[in-house]
Amino acid sequence: MNSENLIEDVVAGKPRAIARMMSRAETGTPEDYALMAEIFRRAGRAHVVGITGVPGSGKSTLVRSLTLEIRKSGRTVGIVAVDPSSPFSGGSILGDRVRMNDLTGDDGVFIRSMATGGALGGLARPALDTVDILDVAGFDVVLIETVGVGQDEVDIVSAAHTVVVVSAPGLGDDIQAIKAGVLEIADIHAVSKCDRDDAAKTVADLQGMLSLGRGGAKGWKTPVLSTSAERGQGIEELLSAIDSHLGHLGDSGEMDMRKRRIAEMRILKSAEDVVRERLHAQRDGRFAELLDQAMSRQLDPHSAALRLLDGFGENGKKD
Amino acid sequence: MNSENLIEDVVAGKPRAIARMMSRAETGTPEDYALMAEIFRRAGRAHVVGITGVPGSGKSTLVRSLTLEIRKSGRTVGIVAVDPSSPFSGGSILGDRVRMNDLTGDDGVFIRSMATGGALGGLARPALDTVDILDVAGFDVVLIETVGVGQDEVDIVSAAHTVVVVSAPGLGDDIQAIKAGVLEIADIHAVSKCDRDDAAKTVADLQGMLSLGRGGAKGWKTPVLSTSAERGQGIEELLSAIDSHLGHLGDSGEMDMRKRRIAEMRILKSAEDVVRERLHAQRDGRFAELLDQAMSRQLDPHSAALRLLDGFGENGKKD
Repeated sequence: MNSENLIEDVVAGKPRAIARMMSRAETGTPEDYALMAEIFRRAGRAHVVGITGVPGSGKSTLVRSLTLEIRKSGRTVGIVAVDPSSPFSGGSILGDRVRMNDLTGDDGVFIRSMATGGALGGLARPALDTVDILDVAGFDVVLIETVGVGQDEVDIVSAAHTVVVVSAPGLGDDIQAIKAGVLEIADIHAVSKCDRDDAAKTVADLQGMLSLGRGGAKGWKTPVLSTSAERGQGIEELLSAIDSHLGHLGDSGEMDMRKRRIAEMRILKSAEDVVRERLHAQRDGRFAELLDQAMSRQLDPHSAALRLLDGFGENGKKD
Repeated sequence: MNSENLIEDVVAGKPRAIARMMSRAETGTPEDYALMAEIFRRAGRAHVVGITGVPGSGKSTLVRSLTLEIRKSGRTVGIVAVDPSSPFSGGSILGDRVRMNDLTGDDGVFIRSMATGGALGGLARPALDTVDILDVAGFDVVLIETVGVGQDEVDIVSAAHTVVVVSAPGLGDDIQAIKAGVLEIADIHAVSKCDRDDAAKTVADLQGMLSLGRGGAKGWKTPVLSTSAERGQGIEELLSAIDSHLGHLGDSGEMDMRKRRIAEMRILKSAEDVVRERLHAQRDGRFAELLDQAMSRQLDPHSAALRLLDGFGENGKKD
């Protein structure tokens, strides 16, 4: 299939074309980049919603319930799930995916699970290209699910228009500490497992933190919602808050600021990927000498990096 | 204090100078880079040991016990603990640090806790500069403790000569999935809480995985050790395995390969920081136009990144 037909088939929402395009987003040859550029230009219609939370927060279960709720409203849902991967199994561990199984019979839902751990390049670029593909394929809402740990994961979920951070009551100290880094990006807090006794404390803690911290979008009061995916509790309210947030972004003019921030992050991630690829390609070339000098501690990493980058202009042309 | 005196005071092991130098590693002005370059050139003597594990793995408790064990052997210990941070509290959450308290009265131990979440630049560059500072200050062993999640955290701990991955029995599925990404970098596995009934299963699982996967350093058989920091069990064996691994690296010639890999990673991380800083500095300059085009989806992120990077040569000179 040539590239033009592939794009048209993605636009037509054909699942096999969508999956094929996603694989090409992950490979990243020059031809793939050209395809993704075209996808990027055509995207921009979907409401992109990020859902993140630490391990054990009940995030995946919530994504499942939320998806069913969005479907009830008549809208279609694309899901990009960013998973840690096992180098031993050679792919992502599918625990979360199994729980999604009751969604897979529905044409109005498309789930893509992405594994981390590629030797070269980060996950942000392919993950956000995948979001664009689902957007171009006509899905009304695209959910990005990431574990709320690690800079890359936080960056990916920050590329959403609306970010939901899921917290569970009663997690251990270590887990709570990790969570802290992701709290500031929340447009909406969802406390899962609200049937538990200690859920009220988690809600109060979050509200206390919000009263201390900077807000998110101007004029938006970040809500703290109690949910229980098992009992279907609070899911309607969650979707309603997500929709309200989109409305707020449009009404307040904040959407442009957010899109600018997202564009900046995507360019930065792409630039990092390019740097990594070029360094890798020059491992035995001009990079080799700098590397030898750094190994023997004659040249520090920062100076070596500057020398490399200052050669990028000429080198780019030669490549 | 001028820069030369500061370096001499670090070499003399003066705690205040060490702390001051570490703060400068975190700021990263051009003058700080010059200082760090000098530190880098003088470093290279310490045995750098990375300790990583998922939240709840008992990693911090193990670091504490291991530190006491190294001290018993007469060696000094520097610790770089990379923590997730809270934007609300304005710093790292100190749960782990509290557990370290019984070490802080000892002159032969220096603990530096680093928070993630800086707006600009990753954590790897300052964290590894901090390792070098402890090295130059004369600490025999430098421990890097990171949470084993997120690319940055995994990269940081991979910059050690010897990597210990800590696993706990009986963690949830979500946690185990996250763990998978970090298993491949282990030179030594430590199973914590070995007094628990299910610890034997964790040991067997790890051994099973090792028999399937690629090994670490050539000729090195990655051991799986049972430990219980609370009971002081297996800590002597852990230190002995760490020492053996260092011996192996030297004997086998693998140390050079590892140093090369570490140098490569550090240059790459520095290059990424430089790219980020320059883009940030050009936000209202030549980057602004590209950003506008990306926002309106006329120009895709990859093409925008290429245009920016190809201007780096000239720009570097102007900066």
